[in-house]
Amino acid sequence: MDVYIQHNDVNLYYATNFNAVDLAFYVTEMNILIVPDMEKERALKESKVEVKSFGDLGYHKLRKKMDSRDALAEMLIGFLKSHGVKKVGIPENFPAYLALKLSNHFDVEITNPFIKMRAIKSEREIEFIRDSSKAAILAFEFALKVLRRERSCDRVRERIENYLYLKGYITGTIVSSGEVSAIPHGSGGFVEDHVVVDVFPRSRRHRYYSDFTRTVIVRRNEKIEEMLNAVIEAQEKAISIIRDGVKAKDVHNIVCDVLESYGYGTLRRKSKEGFIHSTGHGVGLEIHEEPRIFENDDTLRTGMVFTVEPGLYYKDVGGVRVEDVVVVKRDGCEVLTRYPKFVRI
Amino acid sequence: MDVYIQHNDVNLYYATNFNAVDLAFYVTEMNILIVPDMEKERALKESKVEVKSFGDLGYHKLRKKMDSRDALAEMLIGFLKSHGVKKVGIPENFPAYLALKLSNHFDVEITNPFIKMRAIKSEREIEFIRDSSKAAILAFEFALKVLRRERSCDRVRERIENYLYLKGYITGTIVSSGEVSAIPHGSGGFVEDHVVVDVFPRSRRHRYYSDFTRTVIVRRNEKIEEMLNAVIEAQEKAISIIRDGVKAKDVHNIVCDVLESYGYGTLRRKSKEGFIHSTGHGVGLEIHEEPRIFENDDTLRTGMVFTVEPGLYYKDVGGVRVEDVVVVKRDGCEVLTRYPKFVRI
Repeated sequence: MDVYIQHNDVNLYYATNFNAVDLAFYVTEMNILIVPDMEKERALKESKVEVKSFGDLGYHKLRKKMDSRDALAEMLIGFLKSHGVKKVGIPENFPAYLALKLSNHFDVEITNPFIKMRAIKSEREIEFIRDSSKAAILAFEFALKVLRRERSCDRVRERIENYLYLKGYITGTIVSSGEVSAIPHGSGGFVEDHVVVDVFPRSRRHRYYSDFTRTVIVRRNEKIEEMLNAVIEAQEKAISIIRDGVKAKDVHNIVCDVLESYGYGTLRRKSKEGFIHSTGHGVGLEIHEEPRIFENDDTLRTGMVFTVEPGLYYKDVGGVRVEDVVVVKRDGCEVLTRYPKFVRI
Repeated sequence: MDVYIQHNDVNLYYATNFNAVDLAFYVTEMNILIVPDMEKERALKESKVEVKSFGDLGYHKLRKKMDSRDALAEMLIGFLKSHGVKKVGIPENFPAYLALKLSNHFDVEITNPFIKMRAIKSEREIEFIRDSSKAAILAFEFALKVLRRERSCDRVRERIENYLYLKGYITGTIVSSGEVSAIPHGSGGFVEDHVVVDVFPRSRRHRYYSDFTRTVIVRRNEKIEEMLNAVIEAQEKAISIIRDGVKAKDVHNIVCDVLESYGYGTLRRKSKEGFIHSTGHGVGLEIHEEPRIFENDDTLRTGMVFTVEPGLYYKDVGGVRVEDVVVVKRDGCEVLTRYPKFVRI
């Protein structure tokens, strides 16, 4: 591969610090950002890489002879050819019309160097995720107050989202109770014996996410509390083994071991109920990114940031989940969302 | 073209009413929605079309033999071949890896039937845009109050965004004054003689946008007020000719005629300052969609909804803009953002 071209998405932002609103390109090996003419000034301000506008690369001349889509493709093709490029890498979600045009002129490979790079966070990125984690916990504490008066999960969710927006975060939120809580991504219902509150705010300023879940016990319910205690034990054991060099699947397996020891079902045992999802996922500029904490062979490395979020889901009882965000260190890990795990109101 | 495949984006939502968060496909000619297994239940609830899960189409069997990306491509290819498909249409932003794989097996054409369909709104869609338009005006009235005390354009913008969020809308906002206002999409600065307030809220419920701009005169400034009066006259003349059958370029040209008659520059005359953008753009599920109101030959049709937003921009004076959203009717048009055009505080 001679060059890799990234179009406007979080990877372009990661590589250049330019927040592209329209189509833009970054050619990694040349360290060149290619943006619409109207965006050149802002790109020069926000980014430290070399910036070329579409106009600089002859777009407007081409536009007189063909439609805008073809002109853009020809512009890119001409630019790459003038640099002697033969092989071009593009990400899997690159625009199809450009991919097909490029494939007529170059050896095109689907790849993405940023996915693995982004899995290891810098100190600066960790501070951003720490900031969003603090916001998530504040929002959860706010939710506890709302839950003293409010019976509609949807209304609690709306209050959390408004609270975080005013603090500078856009958040996705799951608030579920009763049978709705038996669906991992289900949200809604009326507050019964327990409530799952899952908050994943992204800062409107630095754009990094956090992801935090607690299960709140509202009224005594033996089955739910037993499930919650097992999940907490599984989560704490998993967190206790996380350190540089450990395999992702070892973290996942320890969660399964604990939950199975209490007689709960797991995906590993092909159960349809019980622990029916993975143990966690990377968190950063996207809410789901590398590493995956599941049955995979990936090795955890210092600076990786991900969730540890075992849960148990049974249709006739409901679901519980406990989720924290951790940073891998050489000799262990740091929890960015430190908060008591068994919560009762 | 035998079939057209739409992946998860606003077009899929438009066609199926299913709000896909992960990769999903809709095959228009078969009226089949193809979704991840976890999403099947929700897709069946939200959509009226036939729903198949990846599992239904043999994804999991394929997954045992190859990586997830290849398995997804093979699943789609197998499904299409089993229906005797030879030619496949895909939109320009379809994922590259699938486009390249499909092109090895089918005659692939880049196209998009929804772009033109979405330009003509149904009564229901017009009600949604009317709703977002009312919110935009309420937010503007709120901004006028804030402007009596606040000198930072960024702070006014933040107050508007918070106000609309709590009412159920996510909004993009431009608040600019002084030299910043000379850049059409520039936002920020301190409140000087005038402020441009551009609000484009999208409902968090029905997902349709509106788009509304007024220029607020804070202190007397002859040049700014002259520019504003010319822009208002140009906009009102343009609106007065809009009806079914009129060409988009006639609307754009009448704006240029009026502004040029006062001696202002236009793009039509290759001026670098003055009226340096198009007259408007369609508004709906996206903030910029068809029709474009510029130098193009498109004919306006009943049910089209778009902005009419002339502006004037001079580096040494600043910029002004007035923007309304209109619906084309058989004999005229209806303004969805009715509000006085010359605003002074």
